[in-house]
Order: sequence, then C-alpha cells, then structure tokens
Amino acid sequence: MRHDGRPDDALRPVRIEPDYLSQPLGSVLIALGETRVLCTASVEENVPTFLRELNEGWVTSEYAMLPAATNTRSPREVTRGRPSGRTMEIQRLIGRSLRAVVDRKALGPRTLWVDCDVLQADGGTRTAAITGGFVALALALRRLQEQGVIQAPVLTGQVAAVSVGILENRPVLDLDYVEDSAAEVDMNVVGTDDGRYVEIQGTAESTPFGRERLHEMLRLADKGLAELHNDQREALGARLETLLVPR
Amino acid sequence: MRHDGRPDDALRPVRIEPDYLSQPLGSVLIALGETRVLCTASVEENVPTFLRELNEGWVTSEYAMLPAATNTRSPREVTRGRPSGRTMEIQRLIGRSLRAVVDRKALGPRTLWVDCDVLQADGGTRTAAITGGFVALALALRRLQEQGVIQAPVLTGQVAAVSVGILENRPVLDLDYVEDSAAEVDMNVVGTDDGRYVEIQGTAESTPFGRERLHEMLRLADKGLAELHNDQREALGARLETLLVPR
Amino acid sequence: MRHDGRPDDALRPVRIEPDYLSQPLGSVLIALGETRVLCTASVEENVPTFLRELNEGWVTSEYAMLPAATNTRSPREVTRGRPSGRTMEIQRLIGRSLRAVVDRKALGPRTLWVDCDVLQADGGTRTAAITGGFVALALALRRLQEQGVIQAPVLTGQVAAVSVGILENRPVLDLDYVEDSAAEVDMNVVGTDDGRYVEIQGTAESTPFGRERLHEMLRLADKGLAELHNDQREALGARLETLLVPR
Amino acid sequence: MRHDGRPDDALRPVRIEPDYLSQPLGSVLIALGETRVLCTASVEENVPTFLRELNEGWVTSEYAMLPAATNTRSPREVTRGRPSGRTMEIQRLIGRSLRAVVDRKALGPRTLWVDCDVLQADGGTRTAAITGGFVALALALRRLQEQGVIQAPVLTGQVAAVSVGILENRPVLDLDYVEDSAAEVDMNVVGTDDGRYVEIQGTAESTPFGRERLHEMLRLADKGLAELHNDQREALGARLETLLVPR
Amino acid sequence: MRHDGRPDDALRPVRIEPDYLSQPLGSVLIALGETRVLCTASVEENVPTFLRELNEGWVTSEYAMLPAATNTRSPREVTRGRPSGRTMEIQRLIGRSLRAVVDRKALGPRTLWVDCDVLQADGGTRTAAITGGFVALALALRRLQEQGVIQAPVLTGQVAAVSVGILENRPVLDLDYVEDSAAEVDMNVVGTDDGRYVEIQGTAESTPFGRERLHEMLRLADKGLAELHNDQREALGARLETLLVPR
Amino acid sequence: MRHDGRPDDALRPVRIEPDYLSQPLGSVLIALGETRVLCTASVEENVPTFLRELNEGWVTSEYAMLPAATNTRSPREVTRGRPSGRTMEIQRLIGRSLRAVVDRKALGPRTLWVDCDVLQADGGTRTAAITGGFVALALALRRLQEQGVIQAPVLTGQVAAVSVGILENRPVLDLDYVEDSAAEVDMNVVGTDDGRYVEIQGTAESTPFGRERLHEMLRLADKGLAELHNDQREALGARLETLLVPR
Repeated sequence: MRHDGRPDDALRPVRIEPDYLSQPLGSVLIALGETRVLCTASVEENVPTFLRELNEGWVTSEYAMLPAATNTRSPREVTRGRPSGRTMEIQRLIGRSLRAVVDRKALGPRTLWVDCDVLQADGGTRTAAITGGFVALALALRRLQEQGVIQAPVLTGQVAAVSVGILENRPVLDLDYVEDSAAEVDMNVVGTDDGRYVEIQGTAESTPFGRERLHEMLRLADKGLAELHNDQREALGARLETLLVPR
Repeated sequence: MRHDGRPDDALRPVRIEPDYLSQPLGSVLIALGETRVLCTASVEENVPTFLRELNEGWVTSEYAMLPAATNTRSPREVTRGRPSGRTMEIQRLIGRSLRAVVDRKALGPRTLWVDCDVLQADGGTRTAAITGGFVALALALRRLQEQGVIQAPVLTGQVAAVSVGILENRPVLDLDYVEDSAAEVDMNVVGTDDGRYVEIQGTAESTPFGRERLHEMLRLADKGLAELHNDQREALGARLETLLVPR
Repeated sequence: MRHDGRPDDALRPVRIEPDYLSQPLGSVLIALGETRVLCTASVEENVPTFLRELNEGWVTSEYAMLPAATNTRSPREVTRGRPSGRTMEIQRLIGRSLRAVVDRKALGPRTLWVDCDVLQADGGTRTAAITGGFVALALALRRLQEQGVIQAPVLTGQVAAVSVGILENRPVLDLDYVEDSAAEVDMNVVGTDDGRYVEIQGTAESTPFGRERLHEMLRLADKGLAELHNDQREALGARLETLLVPR
Repeated sequence: MRHDGRPDDALRPVRIEPDYLSQPLGSVLIALGETRVLCTASVEENVPTFLRELNEGWVTSEYAMLPAATNTRSPREVTRGRPSGRTMEIQRLIGRSLRAVVDRKALGPRTLWVDCDVLQADGGTRTAAITGGFVALALALRRLQEQGVIQAPVLTGQVAAVSVGILENRPVLDLDYVEDSAAEVDMNVVGTDDGRYVEIQGTAESTPFGRERLHEMLRLADKGLAELHNDQREALGARLETLLVPR
Repeated sequence: MRHDGRPDDALRPVRIEPDYLSQPLGSVLIALGETRVLCTASVEENVPTFLRELNEGWVTSEYAMLPAATNTRSPREVTRGRPSGRTMEIQRLIGRSLRAVVDRKALGPRTLWVDCDVLQADGGTRTAAITGGFVALALALRRLQEQGVIQAPVLTGQVAAVSVGILENRPVLDLDYVEDSAAEVDMNVVGTDDGRYVEIQGTAESTPFGRERLHEMLRLADKGLAELHNDQREALGARLETLLVPR
Repeated sequence: MRHDGRPDDALRPVRIEPDYLSQPLGSVLIALGETRVLCTASVEENVPTFLRELNEGWVTSEYAMLPAATNTRSPREVTRGRPSGRTMEIQRLIGRSLRAVVDRKALGPRTLWVDCDVLQADGGTRTAAITGGFVALALALRRLQEQGVIQAPVLTGQVAAVSVGILENRPVLDLDYVEDSAAEVDMNVVGTDDGRYVEIQGTAESTPFGRERLHEMLRLADKGLAELHNDQREALGARLETLLVPR
C-alpha cells in the first residue's frame, strides 16, 4: 500500500478550475493532491527573432515556485539573479510540450506566454504545469477566436503530463513529494490524447533500470494520461471543439 | 461619482481568506476589489547578522507580481536579474510596517518571512499586501505559540494600510488602477488600530498639495483603516487574542 | 539642547557652491553641516521610450555614496552588481521631486541627468541632494538657454527638501547622523517655494505617531524649507529669473 | 542512405585519447566524427554542504562550448553573465550519469569535477561528453588509487551515452549536426555496460511518437552503447580493472 | 608648441589638497590641470584570505569616474552590473603601485583601502590617482601611528606616476585628454623617489616604437616624477618623516 | 642554472600546429613548454558601433582558461557571472597587439574574433596567445582571400610576444609558472618582425628596477621575439606572403 492509501495505478485527486482570475486572457488553478499551480496564458503581438520571416507563431512558458510553496521556505530566484538549472529545464519542457499540439502557422505571428506559478508544491509540479498550462492556453486561444484575432483552429490535439516511477521496486503512478524523494527511478511522460508521446524523461536516481521496467512505467503513464485528458475536456467543455484542427 | 459607482469615502469590497494553503505556517488570500494578493508567513530559526548578539527576532518581507497580474504581461524580474526599484521600495515598506507592531524581544531569535505575491493587480497592491501580510503573520505566530516555540504575546497591535489620493481635485479613498493613473496626489497610509500612523507616503504626481488637502486625505485614510482593522479581526477571530500584548 | 548646541528649529550651516567643476553643464557642491554632496546636471538629446511620441522632456537622477563617505568604509554598489534598495528609493525620490517643478513641454525632447554623489555623509544626504540638485539643474538649464537650445522658461518654481523628526519626544529640524539613528520618527519633506508639498515621507522608526505630532513636524519643515529656498536664490542670483515660468 | 554514407545503425568513427594533457588528474580528448570534446577530471577535498555529515563523496560536471566550436561563432556564456538553460541541462545530465556508476561511500568525502569542453561541435556533444567524461573520471580515480588517497574500488560499472532519432521516418543511430536539425524525434540514452538505462530523454521535435518507435530507437541505442563501452575499455586498458567493484 | 602652450617636458599645474574631507582616515583632492581626483584611505582590521596566515597587511585600491566627469555623461558602472575592463586594469595598477612602497610586515594584519574617485577627467586620471593615492595613504598611516595602531615606519619610499607619449612624432610629458586621443604612443610610468621604476606600461596606439623612442620617453618621465615626488613632500610636510623606513 | 636546465636566454620548446580544427576559419594549437593554447579566428560581417561610419574593420580577442588548466582547478568565470580583471586585461592586450599589424581599411567592414582558450597553463599564456593568435588570424585572412571576401593584403607585419623577468637578480627569458611566481620583475613584450615594440608591460613584483635592468630585459626579449617570428613564418609557409602589405 502507498503511504496515502492509493493503489499503485491511481492519480491523486485532480481539480482544474478554469477562469480563476478575471484579467489574464486565460487562467487556470490546477490542484493535484496538495500541489497547486496557477497557470495563465497571455498574448504578445510579436515573435522571437528567429521566426520573424516565417510568419509563424510561438508558444513559450515560464515556471516559478513561490518561496513558501515548499516545506522550508526557498529563496526567490531573483535574489540569486537568475533562474536555477532546474527551473530552466522545467520551463523549456513545458514550452516544448505545448508547442507539440499547436499549429504555429494557424496561430499567426504572435507569441503565447504560459506562466506556471507553483503556489504549493507536493510533487508533480512540472506535470501539473503542463496539464494545466494546456487548459490556460486553450482558454486564451478561445478568447482570441472570439475577438477575431485568430480564425482557423490552432490545436492539433490535447497534451498532458504525468509522473511515474519505481518505488520499493514497484512501478507507481503520480508520485507525491515523499514518494519522489524515495523513488529508485523517476520518469515524466508527456503525451497527446491519441496515445503518442511528446517527451519521455526517465532518470535512475539510484538504480539503473531495464527494458521491462520501462514498459511497466509507460503502461501506468498511459492510464494516467487518459484520465488527465478527460479532466481537461471536462474543464474546457464546448470551448475545446472550435479550437481543434479536424483530424 | 467614481467610475465604479463608489462614494469617495468607500473601500472596494474586501475579502480575507485565512489558511488559503495547507503547507505554509501562515497563509492568506486577500481580495481588494479585483486585486488579489497571496500572503504567506514562514519561520527561519536564524536572524540577520546585525541582530546576532541582541537575542531579538526579525520580520522581513518580499513582494512580487506574477507576470500576468497586470493587463499587459510584465516580464519576471528574475529575467532582468534583479528586483526593480519599485519592488524594493514596496518590500521595505511592508517589512517596516509589520515590524512596527512586533515585540522583537518576545519573538526571540528567529526571522519571520512574509511573502506577498500579487496574483492579480488592480491598484492598491502594496496596501493589500500590508493588510493581508499582518493576518498571515498573526496566523504563523499563533501556530508557533501552539507548537510552544514562542510563549509570550508578540504583537503590540494590528497594522493595516490604505491608499488615498486627490482625483479631479477631490479626496478619494482606496484608488483602483484607473483612478491611480489619473490621480493628482497619491498617498499610502499605514496605521495601527489605536489610530496612530506607522508610515505616511504622499506624492504629488502632477500638482503639489497644501496642508488642508493633507488633512482631508488623512481623514479618509483613518476611516478606511478602521474598517480594515475590523476585517482583520473577523478573519483571525479568537486567534488574535492570545497574540496581543496587553496594553 | 541638541548634542551640537542647535535649537530644535535650526538647520545646520548650509553652503551652496555653484560651478564647482568646469566641465559639466551644471555643477554644485552643497554642504549641510558635515554632509557634502556633489550635484551635477548633464543633458542628453534623447528621452525614455515612453515619452518618444509626446515631444516632452525628462528629468532623472542618480545617487551614490563614495565608499569613504561614511564612518566605516562601505563597499561600492558596483561590487554587488546592483544599486541597493535604499539607493533606488532615494534616486527615484530626487527625480520625482525635481520633475515637480519642471515644465516638460517647455524643456523639449531631451533628458536632464542630475547626479548626486555623496562625498561625505552626516545625515540628510537625500534632502541635500534634492536642494543642491535643483541648483545644478537650474545652472544647466541656464546654460542651455544661453546656447539657444531652449527658449521658454522651464521651471515652475523652486524645490528643496529637509528632514524633520521626533527625538526624545521633541520635534526637531534637520537631523544629523547621530540624531537620525536615535529618532523615534523620521520624516523627509520636499516642498516648493509657494509653500506646498511635493512629497512627504514619514516613518515611525520605533513609535507610531499621532496627527498632532505630524503637524508639529510639518511646521518645522516649512521653516527649514523657506530658508533653503532662500539659499538657492542667493546661489543662483540673477540666473534664476529667466528660468522661471511667470505665475 | 545517410548523407555521410553510414548505415542507419552505425556510429561515426570514435577516437578516445587518454592522458591528452599532462597536468590534470585525468584528461581525455574524445572525437566522435568531427565532434571533439576535451574531458578533464579534478579532485577537490571537500563536498557540497548537503553531504557534509554523510561522509560520502560527490561527482559533478561542467560543460561548455568554445565560441568557435559551432559553424557561426557563439558568444561566450560569461558575456551574458550566466550559463544558458541548455548548458545547465547538459551539465546536470552528465553529473547524474556519472554518479550512477560511482559508489559514493567508497569515494569518501571528496568531490570529482568532470569538465567537458567542446572544442568542435558536430552533433552529439552531450553524449560524447558522458562517454569521454567516464574515461577521464576513471583515469583520475586510478591516479588517486596510486596515490593511496582512495583504496576500495569506486566504480560499479561503465557508463556511456549515445543519441538516436527518427529521421525521415527511419530510426537512426548517432545523429550528426545536419541530421539532428532535421530529425522528427531526438533521444539521448545513457546506459551501463550491463545493459540497463541510467537516463532516457526522448523529445518529439515535430511529430509525437508511439510505443513501437520507442522500441526501435532503444534497440539501436543498445547496439551503440555496447560499442562505446568497448571503446572505453580499450582506452583504459588494465587501469579499469582495479577500479571496478566486483559484481 | 603644445595646444595649451606648455613646453614638451612640462607637467600641467599640480595642486594637492590634503585633509580635504573631515571623516575619512586620509583624504586628498589632487588637481592635475583640469583633472580632479578625490583620494581617500580607510582601514579595515582584516586581510584577504590568502594573507591570513602570514600576519602581513594589504593595500588595495578602487577607482571610479563620476558620470559627469567626462565631456559626455558616462553611465555609472553599477547600471551595467560590473566594473569595465578599463576600471579593473586601473585599480589593479594603483594597488600594485602603492604596495611597492609599503612594508607589509610592518603594516600588520590590516587592509588599507585607497579609493580614487575622478570628479573631473581631462587625461592622466590613473597617474593622478597614484600620485594622490600615495598622499592619502600616508595621511592614513600617520593617523594610525598617532592612534598607536601601528608603531614601526611602514613606507619604504614615495611612489608617483606620470604619463608620457609620442605626439606628432615628438615625445611629450603629461598628456591631457586632447593630446592623449591623438598620441601615437602612450606610456604610464610609475616610479619611486630613488629613481627606480615600479611599473612601465607603454602602448603603441597606432605606430610601433623603437628602443630610442622608449629612452626619450623615460627621460621625460623621470623629470615629471621628480617634480611630483617633491609636490608630495610639500603636501605631507613633517608627517612624512616618521612614516619612512630608514634606508 | 634555471630549474629546467635552460640557459637564461632560451625559450622553452615551441610547437605551432596550424589547422588544428576543421570547422573554424582559422585555428592553431600552440605549445610553449607545457603551456597549451588553442587559438581560433572567426569572422563576423559587422563592426562595433563606433566604426560604423568609417568603413573600417576590427579585430578583437577573447581569452579564457579551462578550469583544469591550472594545478588546482579554478572555477569557470561564468559561475561568478563575469570575467575577472586579469582576463579582461589579457584580452584587451591581445586585441591591441593584433590590431597593431592589421590594415583596418584593407580588412573592410568586418570583425575578426580571435579566441584564445588555455587548455593547460604553465606560465606565458598571454604571450603564447598573442603569438598563436597571430597565426590563427593569418590563416583566417588567407581563407577570406581565397573566398574573395578580401582582396588587398591586410597585414603590415607579424606580431609576437614573449615574457622576460628578473629572477634571483638575473634577467631571464620566457618564465614558466614556477619562475614567474618567484620573479622580482615580470615584463611582457609585444613586438613586430621589424624589431619595434607594440606593447611593453613591466611590473616590479617585489623590487623596483632601474634603467639598466630594463635594457637587459629588452635585449632578451628581442632575441625571443626573433625566434617566435621565425616559428610563425614556418607554420604559415607560403600562405603568409599574399597577406603582407609590401613595405
């Protein structure tokens, strides 16, 4: 049994609260157990230099933890003058994951900024950020459609993320902080709603793993991803339909 | 009439939600109209160097705005490598204001960090941060009392803050963003619940002001502060009593 | 009696030395007791981005202390890589104060930089910087007039600043370093020569203050400001007249 | 056919030159096609704070590219003041990979720094850095053994890394720069000589990938890793034996 | 003839004003033509780490230019976050030059900070800083002797500096800004009062120079240094004697 | 006798390996005893702002040491966020030295970047960087000639550098690290192949030096420079001829 009573293949309770704030173009508060991430999406009518001539859009992400999000207060990164390596890894991952389901030609020459700020951290903050970030992105795109800024559907699918791992030699789904600290292997899987992978990052924290273990973890991840894609659809409701490129 | 229909001497609706998060020692979400500030209080069993030999405690504060808090997204300060002058001014103000009601001998050799993160900004973020920060601080102190870390009462009173200004030549209370941008004079007043001032910062944005105007603004501020002290008492309930040094 | 024998309502000896250097457009050495601030004013034929389309000018200020200005040598801020919060607060205050008496349309699309470098610090450096900075600014404007760069008068009045405080429960004018360290309340008042306020910043260092105390401090400040406006007029002599917008 | 005539499952020519420099404890120049990485290993008789009480050692890595390593000169990261997100990701990956085969108790309370400096880049610099870094680490450990600084064997195995990808819908091994820029999926696999994985990082650059594709890529990676482990053994010769913990 | 009427072998007028400020341990305002450098010397009862065990003292220097010191205002280095290469070169040079005449054993385990701040720049700021810095250092040492902090003489001689150059194919002494900008060769010479060199830095700005030219420049430098050593002696008067180690 | 058996007027063995890498425009590995510096030259079709209107080219240099280049590992400068004063001094020196033999009009509006990275340091890294940097620069210029990017000869001569010093009261040529640490005087001399000086930097580390000593050191430097100019000619062979402006 897991320390909080969950079966090995169960997610923690997920709650996705769309339109959490009134001012940003898109905003979502996602709860995954005790983890809380506020995801917002803003638009900027500009693209990075390397895209200037392509007439394509861009999606980028920034990630941060509030100082009191963790058990002991962590100093703000601005006091060190720069984001940590961990922060940069995570925000690059979120950006890549979201771009994987965006038709950048259809988006047009603008940038969507998806900000993921962790209000409370209990493991799985980067996967919650991707899952919630997708919803904030969709809400912002819907608003831009309503304003007539974009016309064509922009999303080629849904994207969500989940963590899996090997804990006491057993594959488990969605590790909280306590489990994550003790896991032998830790893997984050980002996947689309048609069952394919956008990103797989598996790390042996203490014990290298074989091919068989990899499969068992992927099977758990697939189950979790399907549930999260469903939660996203419920949160977005009818708004999702007009955004999806017909397959 | 003001643009949102309020009388000149009325605050916007205030909502103080204590224990907003489960992990930090103290946490509050304060709403002041559309402004939302998340205030948390954490303890560190250490004090700044200049206090080492005095056996006194310290209260300090950090303030930040999420990038999407404002109408147009603002870049995170970490990307510039340092807090702006505005941020530093505000967090120094919050820290001074909270220390004004703390008996640092009674607190003992520890530091309380009060983090104020603006989730949504519509004017008055620094005053909301002080008013909410006091509640987060009180909640954390109460928890430390329950844990037996501190014994004696630590607070010498309540502290709250409010903005006043001169708008179209009329003194008004609690300016929202639109009003603040148009005001001739802008003043922040920090006060204790016995009617005295901890800090007065008045700035003529366009037109210098005379002694008479100053009085009218202070009268409005006194009214607003009394209401906010009342809101703080309601949010804290019985928890406040054991924290207050008997006068 | 004050520790240096001054009455409670007396300024320290003030000396304003215009044209202290030969190269800058405007330069002043101001002495306030043992405090020495070198103020220079330079012009740049350019304005900040947010003013580009308005055809208005700008006045900005930078403030620094030489390392040996204080009793114990303080490290240069460049070695930490950024100005301290205190420095930023002060230079923002100087800039706002000087802009309050400048007709920015008449100045035209150029920036005046007022640099205030503290050669020796004994309390009151920010108020000396404002009082001296005004004189350096006026000298530079006069030079620009002589060069035909600007035609119309640019100044709407004089601005000066003074500190007041509550020390051993008595209101006193112009605190030196020793007094400032012991004061219960510390207030900086920036005012124009027609008796109005541009900025009031009062801080209870240890004891909150009531409305009555505020008045007594303002009365002292008014007296000090009147004397400083007079000193400015003497230092500038006839040069001031052509700069003042007729009231 | 690949653009350089290689079969899909072939590595580029590998050359590992041990003891490339005379001064560092361990040094290797590794060539992988046109890619050249200089790996050195240094010892420091100290460990990071979080290990102080555990009496364990640490292995960490830093990675950098010389400015002229790429086709167009890239500015040094020191001129921006900080390592890029890409650099931090890579050096964290190298460090984790090397630690996976180090018995940190046996190493004792010291840190091994493995510096990987890319002299010339043509794709695969991070995998070459891991493969070469292992050899530099082993050389340094051998030297420490000879000096009597460490006694027991410290390595639990060999670690190497290889890139695989999907290019024009075909799985290929060891992508050079031209291939990497065009690949649909890019995956770096870090593995030990007993056929297990330490790290798997697969990213869909343009097209999400299914479970089947993942397998094909892992099969290629396994083949490449076996060859690289062999190259490491040849470069180290007899020196490797005394370093390996008996299985 | 030179543009200001000086003969080729003449210094500009030199004025050394000791005790320019009242608070620092040692302070000097040195004028060299229109160049003005404020030199102060402070003591810190501490030495850099690498000297901890040697019981020796240290002399170090920092150099900066006020923004308005040059014809066009230069941004403060703190706004770029770090001293420029030029600043670092100069302050390292000043430090080395002053240490050359200090008996660091006799100084004992303390650091003397010599701050050289250029109030106005018209060429020769680094040489004026060395010449004036020596006087500030001597004044501070004298004060430490009077306080009984140091007993034995600390100075092994005087040190001063001068610039020479080749201008329109003629060797000239003490170049001002206009001459310096046009010179073919620029050389700074730091020398002791017994006619030896501490530092020679000659740079061909446009035309390499032969051995003969070098001699002619050194001959001019020797003449200028002798005059500056004399000016130093006059400024210090009797105070210099007790500081000099008997030869 | 010197500690490595060399006569006082002998260089350490010099090896210049042109075309060390395949990708950069010009690349050289220079060995001077145990010192190894990798010099590369890259072109950028752009010039610094201050040259925009002159239609002239620019040559600039950057210098760095790999962390393991020295006996004890030195932290990378990027981890401190900025180049040290020493690094900046050296790279400014290399740039000035190379520009002294470049006809910038003939180069045309482009920048040549010469990067000097020290792989292993045993004294004389800056002089090796200049000597090797010249060869890398020449190789790059030759390539640009072959590509037809530049037509006219660009070099007015060769430039090389050597260190000399006073060690145990004897003048010696080309100090290695051990000698450099013990030297009384340390001098770097940069010279052209027609026997003139571009830069002379002599520093008395412990004992000021007289005019006679200076001569003896320059005589040694001249001998060393002649040998290095010869080594450069051998490394470049026929390629040098077409680059030299006829005298």
